[in-house]
Amino acid sequence: MADEKWPVDDNPWRVKAERTAFENDWFCVEEHDVVRPDGRDGYYGVIRVRRMAVGVLPIDSDARVHLVGQWRYPLGRYSWEMPEGGADPGESAEACARRELAEETGLRAGRLVEILRMDLSNSLSDEQAVVFLATDLSPGPAAPDGTERLRHRLAPFADALAAVAAGKITDALTVAAVLRAHHMAVKGEIERPLGDMLRG
Amino acid sequence: MADEKWPVDDNPWRVKAERTAFENDWFCVEEHDVVRPDGRDGYYGVIRVRRMAVGVLPIDSDARVHLVGQWRYPLGRYSWEMPEGGADPGESAEACARRELAEETGLRAGRLVEILRMDLSNSLSDEQAVVFLATDLSPGPAAPDGTERLRHRLAPFADALAAVAAGKITDALTVAAVLRAHHMAVKGEIERPLGDMLRG
Repeated sequence: MADEKWPVDDNPWRVKAERTAFENDWFCVEEHDVVRPDGRDGYYGVIRVRRMAVGVLPIDSDARVHLVGQWRYPLGRYSWEMPEGGADPGESAEACARRELAEETGLRAGRLVEILRMDLSNSLSDEQAVVFLATDLSPGPAAPDGTERLRHRLAPFADALAAVAAGKITDALTVAAVLRAHHMAVKGEIERPLGDMLRG
Repeated sequence: MADEKWPVDDNPWRVKAERTAFENDWFCVEEHDVVRPDGRDGYYGVIRVRRMAVGVLPIDSDARVHLVGQWRYPLGRYSWEMPEGGADPGESAEACARRELAEETGLRAGRLVEILRMDLSNSLSDEQAVVFLATDLSPGPAAPDGTERLRHRLAPFADALAAVAAGKITDALTVAAVLRAHHMAVKGEIERPLGDMLRG
């Protein structure tokens, strides 16, 4: 991201030793003995996530979004979100977006555009996310996996935007995707007539 | 979040056993033996984060945002972001926002409004984030801690928004905050004349 507007500095940390303290199929935890930016000895525990998080916001020609609801185990509560998943080793973010969209909603996207890249928790982990906007949708059979029990809802985009603003939709990828789609519509980056409908 | 528009289901998972596999001062990892929604035995590794992530987007009366640049150790790269930190035990999100704003930029906010709540990585962790918009700013002395070597930049809001859209600002809290501030401006939720300037 370095350019004249956004200058960068070199790494002010030094690693003295590192070890893997925990690992499973989804992430590992590394413990590093470090010299901190102020020159003092310190410790950093880093979570390395094995899969890139991929989200896809499917919007139909009537400005409705396809959302899926599911119980999120780590949160211990239910969550309404866009289709999401983790990119398998060797799988591109775009291929993952198409796969998750098909598995969770049955939809195929005639047009798929990357709209955001995010670091989800950069003080603790290296987890990355890529978000796509899917339009020109056509239906097909869904096939969720055994860890998923999904509801599917087709909601007016304005309702999803209001739910983000009200804190009723809280999944970070979905929050950012819905707001970015609104921003794109305002800036004229989504083709008419859909762009006009999303601007509301 | 349950209401007639956003229905919820009960927890379809059952826990058979759990153990803490790793912990440090920032997070712990729990391993759960579970019965999955499809009735089969399974495993879930859950990261429990000890501090709420708090971010604050400071916008001055000339529609400029105060951003801080720093090396993000887990990413191994530099990142431009709004002031952020973790709420200490017993500290409210609002108090944390005011503290981080003062420590990282020296600023005091005459007006501080909560604008977003997010779950940052809900398939792996329970990490929560709260985002504030700070306006009516007054300057003071900054005091970053020993793990931080910060650059400070006052950027036109339009530049920050463009950097989010271009993938040059990638911190999830900052991405969402900048897009939400734009959305609020478009919806007339930010007082004039600032709201008009942010709408661009």
